[in-house]
Amino acid sequence: MGISFNVIEKKDYTVIEFKLEEAIIEPNLLKIIEPPKVDASKGVVLSGRGPIWIYCFLVHYYHPTAFVATFDPRLGGAVVVESHKKGFNVGEVIKLGGD
Amino acid sequence: MGISFNVIEKKDYTVIEFKLEEAIIEPNLLKIIEPPKVDASKGVVLSGRGPIWIYCFLVHYYHPTAFVATFDPRLGGAVVVESHKKGFNVGEVIKLGGD
Repeated sequence: MGISFNVIEKKDYTVIEFKLEEAIIEPNLLKIIEPPKVDASKGVVLSGRGPIWIYCFLVHYYHPTAFVATFDPRLGGAVVVESHKKGFNVGEVIKLGGD
Repeated sequence: MGISFNVIEKKDYTVIEFKLEEAIIEPNLLKIIEPPKVDASKGVVLSGRGPIWIYCFLVHYYHPTAFVATFDPRLGGAVVVESHKKGFNVGEVIKLGGD
């Protein structure tokens, strides 16, 4: 399908790592993509190398979850970009590792 | 504030160009950012050079609008990443220019 996912469960969030199977992917991938189901009472951390529109699609897809954060290698952590959950505020960086 | 916006009105969408005022910005920018108000009956096209988390934050921010697309220089157009509007489907590329 052009993209594969790896799911890692943490206490407060699910890490969704994606990997593109081709060097260049086309946007119509978004018409057939099937991201992993998650426990929406936890947050989601997105990680992977890919174009901005994949991240933006996935952020919207996981919108019903407690919060969504995107991994930024420069920061060594994931930036919370939307949140309905206390303790995980937009603009904060979650250091991964641990629980 | 670290970010400035330029707004361009088109018939079916509003183009929101952002520009970072510093080479390196920190995620706590998201705590104070004030993106432009738009006509939510139209879509939003996001454009600018910046980290993925800025795009993801803005996609969520403009979620109530007709659709959201993110510009991709490689494609020479904007990829629709979420949509409530007929004729603007997720995974399609909007060529900018024109109305």
